[in-house]
Amino acid sequence: MNQTVTRAIRGNFFDLTGCASRPEEIADRVRYIEDGALLLEEGRIVWLGPWQAAQARLPAGTPVEDYRGKLIVPGFIDTHIHYPQTEMVGAYGEQLLEWLKSYTFPTEAQYHCPTHSAEMSRFFIRQLLANGTTTALVFGTVHPQSVEALFTEADAHQMRLIAGKVMMDRNAPEGLLEDADTSYQQTRELIRRWHGRGRLGYALTPRFVPTSSPELLTAVRRLREEFPDTWVHTHLSENSDEVAWVRALYPDHAHYLGVYHDYGLTGKKSVFAHCLHLDEHEWACMAHTGSSIAFCPTSNLFLGSGLFRLKKAWEMQVRVGIGSDIGAGTTFSILSTLGEAYKVGQLQQYRLSAFEAFYHATLGGARALHLEEKIGNFEPGKEADFVVLDSQATPLQRLRAANSGTLAEKLFVLMTLGDDRNIHATWVNGAPVYRAGE
Amino acid sequence: MNQTVTRAIRGNFFDLTGCASRPEEIADRVRYIEDGALLLEEGRIVWLGPWQAAQARLPAGTPVEDYRGKLIVPGFIDTHIHYPQTEMVGAYGEQLLEWLKSYTFPTEAQYHCPTHSAEMSRFFIRQLLANGTTTALVFGTVHPQSVEALFTEADAHQMRLIAGKVMMDRNAPEGLLEDADTSYQQTRELIRRWHGRGRLGYALTPRFVPTSSPELLTAVRRLREEFPDTWVHTHLSENSDEVAWVRALYPDHAHYLGVYHDYGLTGKKSVFAHCLHLDEHEWACMAHTGSSIAFCPTSNLFLGSGLFRLKKAWEMQVRVGIGSDIGAGTTFSILSTLGEAYKVGQLQQYRLSAFEAFYHATLGGARALHLEEKIGNFEPGKEADFVVLDSQATPLQRLRAANSGTLAEKLFVLMTLGDDRNIHATWVNGAPVYRAGE
Repeated sequence: MNQTVTRAIRGNFFDLTGCASRPEEIADRVRYIEDGALLLEEGRIVWLGPWQAAQARLPAGTPVEDYRGKLIVPGFIDTHIHYPQTEMVGAYGEQLLEWLKSYTFPTEAQYHCPTHSAEMSRFFIRQLLANGTTTALVFGTVHPQSVEALFTEADAHQMRLIAGKVMMDRNAPEGLLEDADTSYQQTRELIRRWHGRGRLGYALTPRFVPTSSPELLTAVRRLREEFPDTWVHTHLSENSDEVAWVRALYPDHAHYLGVYHDYGLTGKKSVFAHCLHLDEHEWACMAHTGSSIAFCPTSNLFLGSGLFRLKKAWEMQVRVGIGSDIGAGTTFSILSTLGEAYKVGQLQQYRLSAFEAFYHATLGGARALHLEEKIGNFEPGKEADFVVLDSQATPLQRLRAANSGTLAEKLFVLMTLGDDRNIHATWVNGAPVYRAGE
Repeated sequence: MNQTVTRAIRGNFFDLTGCASRPEEIADRVRYIEDGALLLEEGRIVWLGPWQAAQARLPAGTPVEDYRGKLIVPGFIDTHIHYPQTEMVGAYGEQLLEWLKSYTFPTEAQYHCPTHSAEMSRFFIRQLLANGTTTALVFGTVHPQSVEALFTEADAHQMRLIAGKVMMDRNAPEGLLEDADTSYQQTRELIRRWHGRGRLGYALTPRFVPTSSPELLTAVRRLREEFPDTWVHTHLSENSDEVAWVRALYPDHAHYLGVYHDYGLTGKKSVFAHCLHLDEHEWACMAHTGSSIAFCPTSNLFLGSGLFRLKKAWEMQVRVGIGSDIGAGTTFSILSTLGEAYKVGQLQQYRLSAFEAFYHATLGGARALHLEEKIGNFEPGKEADFVVLDSQATPLQRLRAANSGTLAEKLFVLMTLGDDRNIHATWVNGAPVYRAGE
């Protein structure tokens, strides 16, 4: 072995060792190592196993981070979030289209200012890390400077983060619109500057069909053809009025997803947020193009958009990640988001197990982003992004911990009662980037 | 005036000054006093007004509690909660009937032990106070000692708390069953010991129809006739399977509520938790008997029971309070519970305003318990139960506070992002019973 161990992490480790094609398979992928050691070579994982067995592999003097008694899991992956909406979380009383008009667009208008963008990027990245989220797929605003600021901040923490500036040329306030050519040029410039720099990636980010003219969608297609390695990140079928609006705007396409598909925007590395009202044809199109879905339970409840059909996604073999969807979502915490995902399941007689929930938040999310070769679990060679969880952060959690025997129970209590207080530390690329209380 | 001011509380005060028969009226009942003073004579409210105007009423040397900058609201009222289920919050994977069998009954069996009951009562009351809840309507277990312990602890804090031992004589494990006569005798004894002692009240607590024989329901009716001043506290129409079961058990009654009604258990001071699947006849019966409903959003989502129709309750003029329903509910926090109530509304196109939400949690809840003459707002003569809220307990809340102008916005952010961290202090009967960090 040419590998040098530069650091060891000691604690209890939980991850899912492989992908699943049915939820029933997930329990077979569970790995749990009580008093284990995760060995790193700089930002990479070299080995995971029992602490006792690790000793022989540790060169004298290797620094050991001692998290005994804590539960260490792969860093959480948030597959849909708007960083410029952080400051408007919990805006009252509207469903999607009015909510955009009343709250979102005025807030996003502020991101023409690089100073504001930089300040909010710092706040946003700190919130991600404080909630154990190490990778996110992020909407900026229409302003290139919004994404400049965000990438700069994420790069400073060596995060694997994917983002893009919004592309939109109609049905929004004048100051937030651009023409298709400008959108193309600015996006192209951002891709060249940021895509593949450090661990960063770029996502072509048309807001959604209603704010996209045929010319704009043509520009997005052109970019995707020029940069086939980039992601596509947009919204799909969140709200019934939105679906009807798309039908009126694009009557010649088979359905809502058909608009994206006809412009070449479905496929691997295309992530569609929400997907609440898909018809059978759209589900089939999601499946055969290999497109992914971001399931955003707190947002779907908060805006009254509807209930995501996780069972259907499994049946159709469509990749699914979890999204906080800040600011329509109500929490940065992926733990809390999983708790709400459970409730969405319960309302449809679908039992979301803790193992399945954590799968979606880690390896499944990585798979939805086609990053499962790089992140999502503790396989040797992967990048060392992980979260140290304190499962007894509140009096009620301490009481529950005394009554929870199995790993599945402990994880379920974490997602039902958990929040940012359960994040003891967050590590990105082999280095600590957040420690509670600091 | 014969009143003596023994203490003054300084801060920003919000309450609702009167009851409403339509949600639109609630905004007219809002009272907000920036830099106000609440004057107390021991446990009673004497006066509320601007701090400046209060000076003249303050005898020299009156102690002043300085909460400047904090928001002070009437103590929260939780109209449905099971104290013995505290230790099983977040039990995975079942809907109502299986959940009772798998988790609830084994947990409740432990409350035959007075020591366990006393320990859990201490924990439970502390959780209520740490979450700003000053009044609750509480299920014990079938064991009289469970209620003894709870009343003892609540009395030590001078809380206005209503509770009762569960009455059940079938369809539960042997060790939790009793016969109707024993149930009658034990309940009667508890009523005589506790009902009206200090601020305590007793609720006749048949678990629900499926665990009640005709003999048991007859015993409950007899107690209600003997003690017309007690409450009735039970479950109604939470889950579709439960509704079908009741129909099979009591085929001669018009509907589920009809069983309670025919045994004389509807009426003023009867509180029915859930009420998710009522038919028109049941709604009419709720209304004309003056019965009340406890709306338990986190529980209804967690067990996948269904969506409560708040709009219908207003139309039918049925009194509604908020219930955490620990342990099927997932939080003690009435703030978080209101946030989930909003989501339940959104899924039905009902916009729950912050003012309406806080109404249900304070004066509306008091009215649901027929306690609106004693608690629920800051009217002179009422008992001094209140919560001091810190609306900036987390970084995200601080950011949002900078962007929230109106009182309604501030309250809405509190219910959307808030939890126990927002409870700065809780006062009961004119005395501090909880201070954050102590």
